[in-house]
Amino acid sequence: MGIPVENFFLKPDTKGTLQARIQQMVAEGILSGRFRRGEKLPSSRKLAKHLGVSRITVTLAYTELLSNDYLSSKGRSGYFVSDDAPTPPTFDATPERADSVDWTRALGRRFTGYATLVKPQNWQDYRYPFLYGQTDPQLFDHAHWRLCALQALGAKDFAALTQDYSDQDDPQLVEFILRHTLPRRGITARPDEVLITLGAQNALWLTKQALLNESRLAVIEDPCYPALREILMRARCFVHATPVDKDGLPPDQIPEGADVIFVTPSHQCPTSYTMPLARRQALLARARDLDALIVEDDYEFEIAHIKPPMPALKSLDADGRVIYVGSFSKSLFPGLRLGYIVGSAPFIREVRALRASILRHPPGHAQRTTAYFLSLGHYDSLVKRIGKALNDRRVIMEHAIRKYGLTIAGKGTHGGSSFWMRAPDHVDCEELTVRLREEASVLIEPGTAFFAGPNPPRNFYRIAYSSIAQARIDPGIAEIARAIDATSVT
Amino acid sequence: MGIPVENFFLKPDTKGTLQARIQQMVAEGILSGRFRRGEKLPSSRKLAKHLGVSRITVTLAYTELLSNDYLSSKGRSGYFVSDDAPTPPTFDATPERADSVDWTRALGRRFTGYATLVKPQNWQDYRYPFLYGQTDPQLFDHAHWRLCALQALGAKDFAALTQDYSDQDDPQLVEFILRHTLPRRGITARPDEVLITLGAQNALWLTKQALLNESRLAVIEDPCYPALREILMRARCFVHATPVDKDGLPPDQIPEGADVIFVTPSHQCPTSYTMPLARRQALLARARDLDALIVEDDYEFEIAHIKPPMPALKSLDADGRVIYVGSFSKSLFPGLRLGYIVGSAPFIREVRALRASILRHPPGHAQRTTAYFLSLGHYDSLVKRIGKALNDRRVIMEHAIRKYGLTIAGKGTHGGSSFWMRAPDHVDCEELTVRLREEASVLIEPGTAFFAGPNPPRNFYRIAYSSIAQARIDPGIAEIARAIDATSVT
Repeated sequence: MGIPVENFFLKPDTKGTLQARIQQMVAEGILSGRFRRGEKLPSSRKLAKHLGVSRITVTLAYTELLSNDYLSSKGRSGYFVSDDAPTPPTFDATPERADSVDWTRALGRRFTGYATLVKPQNWQDYRYPFLYGQTDPQLFDHAHWRLCALQALGAKDFAALTQDYSDQDDPQLVEFILRHTLPRRGITARPDEVLITLGAQNALWLTKQALLNESRLAVIEDPCYPALREILMRARCFVHATPVDKDGLPPDQIPEGADVIFVTPSHQCPTSYTMPLARRQALLARARDLDALIVEDDYEFEIAHIKPPMPALKSLDADGRVIYVGSFSKSLFPGLRLGYIVGSAPFIREVRALRASILRHPPGHAQRTTAYFLSLGHYDSLVKRIGKALNDRRVIMEHAIRKYGLTIAGKGTHGGSSFWMRAPDHVDCEELTVRLREEASVLIEPGTAFFAGPNPPRNFYRIAYSSIAQARIDPGIAEIARAIDATSVT
Repeated sequence: MGIPVENFFLKPDTKGTLQARIQQMVAEGILSGRFRRGEKLPSSRKLAKHLGVSRITVTLAYTELLSNDYLSSKGRSGYFVSDDAPTPPTFDATPERADSVDWTRALGRRFTGYATLVKPQNWQDYRYPFLYGQTDPQLFDHAHWRLCALQALGAKDFAALTQDYSDQDDPQLVEFILRHTLPRRGITARPDEVLITLGAQNALWLTKQALLNESRLAVIEDPCYPALREILMRARCFVHATPVDKDGLPPDQIPEGADVIFVTPSHQCPTSYTMPLARRQALLARARDLDALIVEDDYEFEIAHIKPPMPALKSLDADGRVIYVGSFSKSLFPGLRLGYIVGSAPFIREVRALRASILRHPPGHAQRTTAYFLSLGHYDSLVKRIGKALNDRRVIMEHAIRKYGLTIAGKGTHGGSSFWMRAPDHVDCEELTVRLREEASVLIEPGTAFFAGPNPPRNFYRIAYSSIAQARIDPGIAEIARAIDATSVT
């Protein structure tokens, strides 16, 4: 491939003759790894015209670079980066600049430094990936997804693909969610009560931004999804973590003054407990007494493979105080980055304006592809197939867990994709995770990051069966049991 | 299409016999428009099992609905929503709920109510769309984009498509930007100095969030891109608008105490003035004196069709104080929602963490498709083709503007896609815009929203040639001239 002439600039601050500056420019490109061996340089005529210098100057520079072995010439076909040109160490060898900016002062706010779940990007290289929330290539309906994506790339959908939607969403996707997705959760809503988001994370962030400020109190479950806790910490509102029991968040433990309560009733995250109906009603009553809002994160509802899921908490909400967050990340794939918020129109209006200011709208092509995938029924079949596979894996996993004497602390009654596990008290699961990863090619998630408070329990961990092949489950669990046993010795 | 059984729920708070509740549930679905004429209901056996009631109860409910004409039965093939069923007025007729939540109090912050540019979503239905920033279906390389998208949907790229990248970007896209896109602007950078964003809007938002707080002073150009001013207003930092002259932002007018200076040196937005080299150097010197940062929005650099663009301001930055914002929205399409930030590593680290908290990452498929489109050279050809077409249109437009006696207030010296226009002083361009849209099918943009201050001039407007067919330009300009003339009479 030729190096386009547009890649060449004479920096106004370089010194020396024109010829020397051209040589330096080419040499720098090679040394920094931007121009690679075998790549063709622009003709001397073209480069001269582009730089506004005489052709002979360029030719002299090229000749000099030729004799230095930076370039080679192949007869009449031009100049190429020589095969003997100095090798750039690696591409990112561009020298680290010594900024004269004091970044400690310049940054108005800090965002790094929060505890998050770290997932190895190369998780597929591990033998036993009991990893949560990635897509299993064996289960995903790649063929139909591709067809829907192609359809959404067609000439008929040109506007949906390319248009600046401004603050709007794809009407086809919104309609499908209203007519088919929400009714399955017992929810009826109007188009002005739904906003498409860039995944559930984005939905939770927008919601906190609209509802919380420095004088408000947010209540979260303990343990809880770490990214949610992080979002709230950054919001600088007050945060109270209420410990959950086997039925989820206990309403009578929610403190006075609570403004917004974040819950996962279908499937408490990470324990997988399901909140029974009576408690849901008590929770709504408690919220009414406090005049608080409830944010319901209904993650994973669609993979209820054991029995039909209970309707969402939102379906019981006569007051308009429940804000419902859904996502396609678990049932489709996380890289899609599509979720939605359902709430009262005055609230949706504000988060819509906020979303427009931050990112305008989720990409049109992803929205339309998903609308097709849903409306052609592929989504339903996919969810069924995933459900069946997860159910099979779950049975094997539960069996293996018993066989090797591990302890389940929580598991979904409707479905889900993971077990919440408790190791003996003396086991530090952060260490266990590292040991299993490095010594036995096993990926588990330490539970520590899920807990609030300064001294979280360290003997919990989560193991998922969404991305691990059936045959790997038993030997993988055996490895975990072995590693835990080895810990007890020390 | 059959209505899936999962769409049926007996709400725990409804009253009456089981049979009556089932009837009510089905009737409500029909009346609200969720179930449509001709759609098939689940069999009585299936629904009974799903609801956990006896089959005879469901059969009795169905029979009752049959006699009320909600349902019809087609012999042995089951029950359908009747063709005589009551019509839902329209789909969004779900009754507006009377919330018991006081949203005025519940919302912690407000985001609506800022002046923004309003674009009709159906702009393609207008005869003379002098509209800025939409994609012209005649110019976009749909065929190759489709091929690249297909390639990125292939089995080989499964991980790139589906994976949760967490806080990371697609390495292929980052590498291409580093090796090919930035060098064209004279910029060299390392991978840890680049972040992919959800378009330029998202890049500007992340940047303001990291750099500004309630005690800092942001400087913007006057006039300026309205969405940027809106972002800064929301940030509750101090904002100073410095009037631009024919060379863009005058460095000596930047006030003492400035912390962050937002500029568009390639193409001042909206006037299209290009900042000359000497002023760029003066601007950098002024920023150094103030110890301020500069955010360079390099929009539209790629469509420089008149002469090669000047290197970016960032290319002259030895201090690390320039933060560079680029985007693929103008040259590819706005619905893609992909842009990038280039800045020093400590800054990029913070905005990366912030982006992860807000939305994790831009969708994998869009990133990989763009990487292919760039690396296969389609992007370069597209930009050339667009440049040629824009140049032709610009010549015609400039000619028509002169012919009909309109006044250009600013035009790009390198290229771009619009003219910044000045109407006679007495013309209110907001009114003019409405009149042209409604009476002459002409879309223009009033200039008012670009200006800061309480009494912005009302006689400026912007007309773009990026989405209008060549043949429509002359008659469209004639319509504008006629409408302006008509204004002078009153």
